[in-house]
Amino acid sequence: MTNVEIAPGKTRIGWIGTGVMGASMAGHLLSRGYAVTVTSRTRSKAESLLAKGASWADTPADVSKASDVVFTMLGFPKEVRTVALGEGGLAATARAGQIFVDMSTSEPSLARDIDAACRARGAHAVDAPVSGGDVGAREARLSIMIGGDAAIVESLTPLWETMGKTFVRQGDAGAGQHTKMVNQILIATGMIGVCEALLYAHRAGLDAERVLQSVAPGAAGSWSLSNYGPRILAGNFDPGFYVEHFIKDMGIALDEAKRLGLSLPGLALAEQLYLSVQALGWGKKGTHALQLALARLSGIDWERR
Amino acid sequence: MTNVEIAPGKTRIGWIGTGVMGASMAGHLLSRGYAVTVTSRTRSKAESLLAKGASWADTPADVSKASDVVFTMLGFPKEVRTVALGEGGLAATARAGQIFVDMSTSEPSLARDIDAACRARGAHAVDAPVSGGDVGAREARLSIMIGGDAAIVESLTPLWETMGKTFVRQGDAGAGQHTKMVNQILIATGMIGVCEALLYAHRAGLDAERVLQSVAPGAAGSWSLSNYGPRILAGNFDPGFYVEHFIKDMGIALDEAKRLGLSLPGLALAEQLYLSVQALGWGKKGTHALQLALARLSGIDWERR
Repeated sequence: MTNVEIAPGKTRIGWIGTGVMGASMAGHLLSRGYAVTVTSRTRSKAESLLAKGASWADTPADVSKASDVVFTMLGFPKEVRTVALGEGGLAATARAGQIFVDMSTSEPSLARDIDAACRARGAHAVDAPVSGGDVGAREARLSIMIGGDAAIVESLTPLWETMGKTFVRQGDAGAGQHTKMVNQILIATGMIGVCEALLYAHRAGLDAERVLQSVAPGAAGSWSLSNYGPRILAGNFDPGFYVEHFIKDMGIALDEAKRLGLSLPGLALAEQLYLSVQALGWGKKGTHALQLALARLSGIDWERR
Repeated sequence: MTNVEIAPGKTRIGWIGTGVMGASMAGHLLSRGYAVTVTSRTRSKAESLLAKGASWADTPADVSKASDVVFTMLGFPKEVRTVALGEGGLAATARAGQIFVDMSTSEPSLARDIDAACRARGAHAVDAPVSGGDVGAREARLSIMIGGDAAIVESLTPLWETMGKTFVRQGDAGAGQHTKMVNQILIATGMIGVCEALLYAHRAGLDAERVLQSVAPGAAGSWSLSNYGPRILAGNFDPGFYVEHFIKDMGIALDEAKRLGLSLPGLALAEQLYLSVQALGWGKKGTHALQLALARLSGIDWERR
């Protein structure tokens, strides 16, 4: 059990990683009245938070020293590993009762390693990746998928409520990351369907907007179709969520699946197609840029069709 | 232009093919007060309609003789071809001004052939496949995807309204079938994602119902996930929509894509996986029985997991 009561004015929050998602999420905690100490690789990305009253610390260890609950929101598992398990990192300097929450999308096995390292010092680790993207982060409408000790996860409810709309404890350490992988498997394979369907509609000479009126409300409907379909048709491939981050997530899911003895042909195909998106130079576009690479397979320049 | 005004008491309807879908759809027309003449390969399947006041005819040509607007709702393109274009079939015996509406899921190129054959006799052909399944047919909530002459399609509005909730003219002859293919491409590839995601959740030791709470309302959500996910978890693989009919639809879409010079790797994978579902003996189960075959790939007996 934690001995920290979570409340503004009582709980000191630490935040490591102030990219697009992290800055919005930490901003909500500040707005709610929490004292927040932040650090980031690029200080300029933390300026908006500092302007709102956050304190700056030079290193993750310094953030941790000043905080009861420390969040990490980083791009890649490698960074999470370094910050959490590296020399002088969060686990090595953890105090009894302290809570570490990793909201990055990362490896389930790494989440369990961090949990073990924290337990060894009487501290607690929670993995809590999110879905909902930059818009969900900005509007505090994220879905937060949580793994960790039940009482600890429960105690953090005021913080989940501040950042998200849906928050469900999925099990012990690693279960949050596993659930995020389920989420990404759904999106990856579903996006192939969306792109191939729109490509077919184009080549068959249909009016794709009108086709969406017929198919989107029914059994073929999905969030991806309704939200990305119109952007694909408009030729707007701004991220949303970066292709290169999605490739990272699919890699984690496929590695875990291999470890679990699980064959996932659809996800494997999705990874290959997204590697093509990246190879063609579109790694910094949104995930729906899959359309560009799929169109190339059939000799179609989607943006000049 | 048609010289038929569409109204109960004025318009004589013909209906060919009284399977689960066709019987419900023709039933709505009867309930609305239309005179309906029916035929079916198996007369017993028409009994419920005959009891409601439909007239029986022994052949499609006899149905056509007694009708102003003739609907076909058949299982396979081969049957549609025989009924519509065969010797003594609908096109060969068509009268000027008569309207033929094929609501089967069939080949876009066949729809165009039927259109040409009907035009040659001053009659009209419309292709109008549907989505929504047996439940949508029963509740008159189908999405009807329509190809054909604009004025003719418009004139049939009272009939579309009687059978469906959404009805959109997608273009000239064949456009309805093409739109249905778009619908099936979305469902086929999306179903791979649903099944692989639930398989991953299972192997990772998650509580799959709880996982759905996290992922279904967000960017990973889809009609298939919300509707088939719970049935897959409950081990209920009753159709819905038969695997073997879905394989027929995917075959049509892939043939058309080949003709259009279009590479669709996701759909090709889906067809292969569904051929496995059929090979394993589950062709009469619902489309979500893909789960059973995918689980087998990893040595999982899903129904006894």
